[in-house]
Amino acid sequence: MNPADHADFGLLSPASAGTAASRLTSDYQFIQAMLDVELEWTRVLADTGRVPADAVPAVEQASRADLYDAAALAERAQGGGNPVIPLLADLRAEAKQHHPGAASAIHKGATSQDILDSALMLMARRALAGIVTDLKTAAAALARQADQHRGTITVARTLTQHSLPSTFGLKAANWLSGIAQAGTRLEQVAGELPLQWGGAAGTMAALTDLAGRPVNPTAAADNAAAAGPTAGTAAPNDGGAANDDGGALALAARLAERLGLADPVAPWQTNRLPVTALAAVLADVLVAAGKVANDVLLLSRPELGELAEPAAEGRGGSSAMPQKQNPVLSVLIRSAALAGPGHLAQIQAAAAGAIDERPDGSWHVEWQALRQLLRLAGGAAARLAELAEGLVVRPEQMRRNLAITGELVVSERIMATVAPMLDGGSPGAGKAKVQNLVNQSLANQGTLAQLLRDAVPVDVLSDEALAELLDPAGYIGQSSELIDRITSHYAEWSHS
Amino acid sequence: MNPADHADFGLLSPASAGTAASRLTSDYQFIQAMLDVELEWTRVLADTGRVPADAVPAVEQASRADLYDAAALAERAQGGGNPVIPLLADLRAEAKQHHPGAASAIHKGATSQDILDSALMLMARRALAGIVTDLKTAAAALARQADQHRGTITVARTLTQHSLPSTFGLKAANWLSGIAQAGTRLEQVAGELPLQWGGAAGTMAALTDLAGRPVNPTAAADNAAAAGPTAGTAAPNDGGAANDDGGALALAARLAERLGLADPVAPWQTNRLPVTALAAVLADVLVAAGKVANDVLLLSRPELGELAEPAAEGRGGSSAMPQKQNPVLSVLIRSAALAGPGHLAQIQAAAAGAIDERPDGSWHVEWQALRQLLRLAGGAAARLAELAEGLVVRPEQMRRNLAITGELVVSERIMATVAPMLDGGSPGAGKAKVQNLVNQSLANQGTLAQLLRDAVPVDVLSDEALAELLDPAGYIGQSSELIDRITSHYAEWSHS
Amino acid sequence: MNPADHADFGLLSPASAGTAASRLTSDYQFIQAMLDVELEWTRVLADTGRVPADAVPAVEQASRADLYDAAALAERAQGGGNPVIPLLADLRAEAKQHHPGAASAIHKGATSQDILDSALMLMARRALAGIVTDLKTAAAALARQADQHRGTITVARTLTQHSLPSTFGLKAANWLSGIAQAGTRLEQVAGELPLQWGGAAGTMAALTDLAGRPVNPTAAADNAAAAGPTAGTAAPNDGGAANDDGGALALAARLAERLGLADPVAPWQTNRLPVTALAAVLADVLVAAGKVANDVLLLSRPELGELAEPAAEGRGGSSAMPQKQNPVLSVLIRSAALAGPGHLAQIQAAAAGAIDERPDGSWHVEWQALRQLLRLAGGAAARLAELAEGLVVRPEQMRRNLAITGELVVSERIMATVAPMLDGGSPGAGKAKVQNLVNQSLANQGTLAQLLRDAVPVDVLSDEALAELLDPAGYIGQSSELIDRITSHYAEWSHS
Amino acid sequence: MNPADHADFGLLSPASAGTAASRLTSDYQFIQAMLDVELEWTRVLADTGRVPADAVPAVEQASRADLYDAAALAERAQGGGNPVIPLLADLRAEAKQHHPGAASAIHKGATSQDILDSALMLMARRALAGIVTDLKTAAAALARQADQHRGTITVARTLTQHSLPSTFGLKAANWLSGIAQAGTRLEQVAGELPLQWGGAAGTMAALTDLAGRPVNPTAAADNAAAAGPTAGTAAPNDGGAANDDGGALALAARLAERLGLADPVAPWQTNRLPVTALAAVLADVLVAAGKVANDVLLLSRPELGELAEPAAEGRGGSSAMPQKQNPVLSVLIRSAALAGPGHLAQIQAAAAGAIDERPDGSWHVEWQALRQLLRLAGGAAARLAELAEGLVVRPEQMRRNLAITGELVVSERIMATVAPMLDGGSPGAGKAKVQNLVNQSLANQGTLAQLLRDAVPVDVLSDEALAELLDPAGYIGQSSELIDRITSHYAEWSHS
Repeated sequence: MNPADHADFGLLSPASAGTAASRLTSDYQFIQAMLDVELEWTRVLADTGRVPADAVPAVEQASRADLYDAAALAERAQGGGNPVIPLLADLRAEAKQHHPGAASAIHKGATSQDILDSALMLMARRALAGIVTDLKTAAAALARQADQHRGTITVARTLTQHSLPSTFGLKAANWLSGIAQAGTRLEQVAGELPLQWGGAAGTMAALTDLAGRPVNPTAAADNAAAAGPTAGTAAPNDGGAANDDGGALALAARLAERLGLADPVAPWQTNRLPVTALAAVLADVLVAAGKVANDVLLLSRPELGELAEPAAEGRGGSSAMPQKQNPVLSVLIRSAALAGPGHLAQIQAAAAGAIDERPDGSWHVEWQALRQLLRLAGGAAARLAELAEGLVVRPEQMRRNLAITGELVVSERIMATVAPMLDGGSPGAGKAKVQNLVNQSLANQGTLAQLLRDAVPVDVLSDEALAELLDPAGYIGQSSELIDRITSHYAEWSHS
Repeated sequence: MNPADHADFGLLSPASAGTAASRLTSDYQFIQAMLDVELEWTRVLADTGRVPADAVPAVEQASRADLYDAAALAERAQGGGNPVIPLLADLRAEAKQHHPGAASAIHKGATSQDILDSALMLMARRALAGIVTDLKTAAAALARQADQHRGTITVARTLTQHSLPSTFGLKAANWLSGIAQAGTRLEQVAGELPLQWGGAAGTMAALTDLAGRPVNPTAAADNAAAAGPTAGTAAPNDGGAANDDGGALALAARLAERLGLADPVAPWQTNRLPVTALAAVLADVLVAAGKVANDVLLLSRPELGELAEPAAEGRGGSSAMPQKQNPVLSVLIRSAALAGPGHLAQIQAAAAGAIDERPDGSWHVEWQALRQLLRLAGGAAARLAELAEGLVVRPEQMRRNLAITGELVVSERIMATVAPMLDGGSPGAGKAKVQNLVNQSLANQGTLAQLLRDAVPVDVLSDEALAELLDPAGYIGQSSELIDRITSHYAEWSHS
Repeated sequence: MNPADHADFGLLSPASAGTAASRLTSDYQFIQAMLDVELEWTRVLADTGRVPADAVPAVEQASRADLYDAAALAERAQGGGNPVIPLLADLRAEAKQHHPGAASAIHKGATSQDILDSALMLMARRALAGIVTDLKTAAAALARQADQHRGTITVARTLTQHSLPSTFGLKAANWLSGIAQAGTRLEQVAGELPLQWGGAAGTMAALTDLAGRPVNPTAAADNAAAAGPTAGTAAPNDGGAANDDGGALALAARLAERLGLADPVAPWQTNRLPVTALAAVLADVLVAAGKVANDVLLLSRPELGELAEPAAEGRGGSSAMPQKQNPVLSVLIRSAALAGPGHLAQIQAAAAGAIDERPDGSWHVEWQALRQLLRLAGGAAARLAELAEGLVVRPEQMRRNLAITGELVVSERIMATVAPMLDGGSPGAGKAKVQNLVNQSLANQGTLAQLLRDAVPVDVLSDEALAELLDPAGYIGQSSELIDRITSHYAEWSHS
Repeated sequence: MNPADHADFGLLSPASAGTAASRLTSDYQFIQAMLDVELEWTRVLADTGRVPADAVPAVEQASRADLYDAAALAERAQGGGNPVIPLLADLRAEAKQHHPGAASAIHKGATSQDILDSALMLMARRALAGIVTDLKTAAAALARQADQHRGTITVARTLTQHSLPSTFGLKAANWLSGIAQAGTRLEQVAGELPLQWGGAAGTMAALTDLAGRPVNPTAAADNAAAAGPTAGTAAPNDGGAANDDGGALALAARLAERLGLADPVAPWQTNRLPVTALAAVLADVLVAAGKVANDVLLLSRPELGELAEPAAEGRGGSSAMPQKQNPVLSVLIRSAALAGPGHLAQIQAAAAGAIDERPDGSWHVEWQALRQLLRLAGGAAARLAELAEGLVVRPEQMRRNLAITGELVVSERIMATVAPMLDGGSPGAGKAKVQNLVNQSLANQGTLAQLLRDAVPVDVLSDEALAELLDPAGYIGQSSELIDRITSHYAEWSHS
């Protein structure tokens, strides 16, 4: 049977299937990330004269994921509990075909957790780049919506009921605020993803032996020259015999730089906060995107009709019900958001279960959970960018819905303004009178406007002042200022 | 690029990779399950004369998963939020090649949720069979261990410290108890997995039209005959015009029977308790297996050495540290157990978020979460069966560890027995005296045996009675009876 | 400072505050449950002649929760990690005041986990009784709604959009189905809550010594007589010297019977499936109740207006916005449902982390999580009963909302019926034509009725048949049959 | 019945009962926090001339939590779904007794969510101060342990098995690294906790009316003077008529400053990332503390004996088993860590479920979950500080355990060093020979030292070099440098 017959292609993961984040986190991409870590390490060792420079091209040739069989690696991974062990065997066999000494130039001083954790971070960084871009696209689009709809009056809803007037612009700005907060933090975390490089027990012991061995300075220089321009930064004696106290750490720092990962204070084999921090902010992306989706799903219901998703060929149709147009982008975003907390809980529980210098099971939980969070956040961000850019806004429907509550939507203001006019000198007494008018209006015993007109003398409240009092558009508070504060606060980020 | 390049082969899921449960829940197996539901429905309709019998062979020919492109289906699934819509299009196109009328004989009166939910249940049932078998294998092996080691004295540990003597047999019996409780319930749930068949809105409306249309009795009989022996059970008028009250429901019942699923009281499109119940018991399997793994991981540490995992070629070795033998089976089981609660929370949260007649995102969360639970439980059960059958038990190490605490391990008994001998007529006064002796022993001021001998007159407690009192093997309570109760309680199940 | 100043009264738990379930799970109720376990055990021992009968009244007098200081016990519980140890000290001191030998008649052969686990089960059983009753009340009310509204046409919604006609009766029946499934299972689990009685290491060792000691048959008979009628069931030699193989187990069985708990196959100190099973079904109650709340929250929005919560003095008002009436019952139910999965995950993770013969931390996690689930389920059930009994249904609003989609709501039926009429002899060709008519209607180029009239010859489809085809009330499938199936399936339970 | 009879005192929460974090998050403390928010707002309004200055003392007198009945408030909170509404009624009634106009000087322009969210942040800030202090205490103690034990050789364990030598100092430093990472971030988040001040719909509408009303400058100045020195910072026209664009926002900024909360970009009523960020870092505290507890629980087992918890009167004893000393601090920390992920999942799920301008249930979930996380983190931090300061380290037991593996513990180094000596000119060939020697040693066919001596000519590897090669203390890599890096990195923080 074809190995692919046992594979997953995302069929049961519509929230992320087909997105860049899914592709960048596939098994083959993860194999590639592991190979990249191994290759860069061989380069570091060659640059500093610790392995022969001519082994590098052989390792390079062997460092292509498509040379390996992911399904077989997955199965063989069970023997040791992780996929590095079988991959390393295959990589060495492959490299040896190109150069007899290549096999022994690979993985020197490293442990499988070094490779796997660093590859996870590398894969994460690659996927995060696109996710951050999508979040910025969404943020910029929401900023435009916020600005454009700062005068679009809509009803604010609390506990599902109409509360006060607001603007659609402020709603969009609040969406932006969430997306940008999560996105800003995600970008920051993406820049801090650390290398893991501690050796079998986190002491860098084998690495220290390796770093401390006498290096032929000529060979190191030669190797550096042979390895090309990037190696030119290598200080001749770095990590060499004259440098035996800092050697191992300096080699690790070089590797971090080559991989574009941060050089951590120390290995973090059983200190999993770099993973929990990444997971938490991915979950926050889902929270922020989920809020948007929840609102769009509600507001695009036929009975509300205030918003509509952008139409696209082949999206949202129903074969059975030809009139139906489903808000599929929001459905998928919401489904991603609903799945987030469970994966975050997995990662937190795994981290909290760490023990010893490499945990007995909790480490293994992180891999799939972190990948799923990357995919879900990536799927949500991609759909959100499309949704934000194409969102159809229907101000007339917003006005129509606002009219359901009518003048009662400013009852808070009426209470605050009119009650003192009716208190007959007894502070607080006016409140009951206003409530009474509201109740009459709710019981269809007249419009609130008329009831108020009848109750308050015109010299206390002119017709004009009454009309102004009852105008929802006049009771939106700091809506416009808040839009400005939010959009300006995140403007630089969303356009960077 | 090869579509498989974007696929997952289980590389980051060592707890389940390569197991039958993983294979039986692959994307292609899920496609097959969806095709099976469609095919059996066409057969039901042909048997009852509602579609032409000669369309059936065409649908059969088209109902092979390998005819379809899982990667493309996954990507197209985003348009409608589920994979049924694109699969149905491809299936119809394929079937039409074999018979012009086959396309219209497919999916009549059904909705995509009917297919997807029923296929999920079908896939679950197929995976569950093997999981239950593995649990029974494990249970039977544990029952043997329990029986064989009913006299193997070991120390019971509470809050990590030595408490009292016990037997390894009782520990094995308690493991069995958990596995069998979860397994029994899993087998029960596996037999109750329901068909979903409600049509677009759960009313069976299209189905009712379909069922209610005049059926040509001759055609129906002919079809039934043509469709072979299984169709012989079809009552000629079943679901027909003369049967318009029960028609749609009777057709659904036929489909349930064909698929080996339960015929539910009603469609359950937004009542997801069948899914949460299955998920909860899968999580319980992980709990029970996790307990075994936690104990084995502890007891096979070098400092304890009471147990060892069965050795196997290529398992547990470390390339870097040639002396190391890792308890990989238990590590993988424990990692599965740690991941369980997060997936269960996803499914519960999704179910709790259901709304309307088909939810706006929470339905989509279940698919991957349920699949992962099936795989994790399947992976854990498979490894557990191997672990239980091959577990190496080292009674001598158990004795050695028990000796660390020495006679103090029966201090509870000493307190209960000796204190009254020392109370000098004042009830309770003896307790402080015994505690004092224990403290002296802890402070290495003599063995507890000697201290007791000195403290209690020989006519009150003979040398023989003292020796008996201090023998751990004499203070194991109902250990043997409990082993019998547990093993006999589950004997029938584990051998069925 | 007053100890209550550090206490919680439910201020931050509005979903459950003030309910019977909260009261029945308070710290004082838990203390009472622990005291009840201790007292009944003393009674068992007295009945069987193992402690003096005259100690019983002293223990009875001391077994009132209000004699103890919960705040101080909570603080002192940290010393040993559980509250049994300090409570036992206080209980013995209290009992001793009434009878000098009472202190030593308490807790004989037991361990703190026996008391705590059994008290948890006892507290759960007491809280569950009311929860089941509330669920039955809700179920019965929903059955009435289902029956009464079997003809109330409403629109079914899938992925937030209008799909097909249905009835409100069917929606109510589906709610009932969820509530009754969860409720039935909850009642079953409530009847199976097991006693925990294993002694310090789960071997019943001290208990075995205790059971095996020569019992003065006269004393036992005397004690039994003195203890009153319930003791009359005690076989004279039960648990006595002549019965030393089954003695300890028989004593435990007596205790279980006295406490109204199930007598388990074996102690379950580190086999926590009784706890996970209870937690899972409580979570299912929240799922089922949450579904109802989600629907009510949507359907009572001003734009939909199909439902309204029952009004009650002091509920749902807003001080600031006098016109507002919030659906508070549903808000609280939904908040309970949202909190459920996290607590279930805690309990599952704790159970999966069990190790040894008493776990090193995971046991302690269960207590608060299980209590919270009892409270949340209890709060949800209580509010649901009130909601279901008083739910205001507005058929006219349902019709109004259905009219938004108009004849298009039966487009599935039109497609199935009319397409064959328009296929011009080429099967399948009619579909595109119908879709075209639908599109024209969506584009406001005529009502679908008129467009269909124009497209289909009257001899193929009469005016009458066309009208019938377009009537939503005629396309509700098995709605009525499903209502009957569901209500009859659960009728007995909900009225028991 | 006494209301306290229905209260919780922490009896089922031993991980946090009796700690400062629990006390600072009690219902009464939360009432106090709500009162503080109301009072400070009244002061802001008085300072700026919007309410009469002489109302302030009346509000001050009424702003003492002990004036209110928490149990009654909890029960009444159900009517509106939150406790602000009943508290506000009682507060106004109380204040009115001191000054007739005080009632109307309270809560002007605010909504209940403003009070509740701001009070939550205030309560969190108060609890966090002590948690951060405890984490610093623990960190400083761990830094001392790390430094003191940089030469204490111990065995590193991976997947439960012995891997390589390490030092206890490095283990302590790694613990410190986790604690300090989480603690640093917690302190940062504690400084960013935002005020919530948006009014009923997040638009600050009522507030804008209030801010925009003509202020009598004289009155404002008078009020400011009357209110004492803190009011001196009020600019005369601030928020006044001349300042109508920034007035409401400036008033909110003043309130934030008074409360010591951050002034956010905008209200965050349905953008809950401030809550999820706080929850995530509290969960990280639990992760870091949990790792320490897991290690201590393992290493203080009798069979390992490398560590012991500090003894304390009344802690860790067992009434039944007088010899037992339980590691209760670690048990409680671990139990807190196990409960963390579930609460974090609740908060994330709640945030992801937000909708509208105030959510219909998800907001209500956060309160209790956040409080529990504060308590668990507080409990864990307090116990950790005590544990870290008093941890008993037993270097001789570490040596004894290391000896179990003997020279094999440096097999990685032997492989790297000796294999090339045995390859007979064929690179890589030596590995199998070394593995063979290791296997012989494992099979007790000689010590590895002797087998190596026999296999490698003395001129290739001198006796002295062989002894050095086999010395575990010589193979600890960068242990000391990593200790320095970690301790110096966090030195400033832990002593600040």
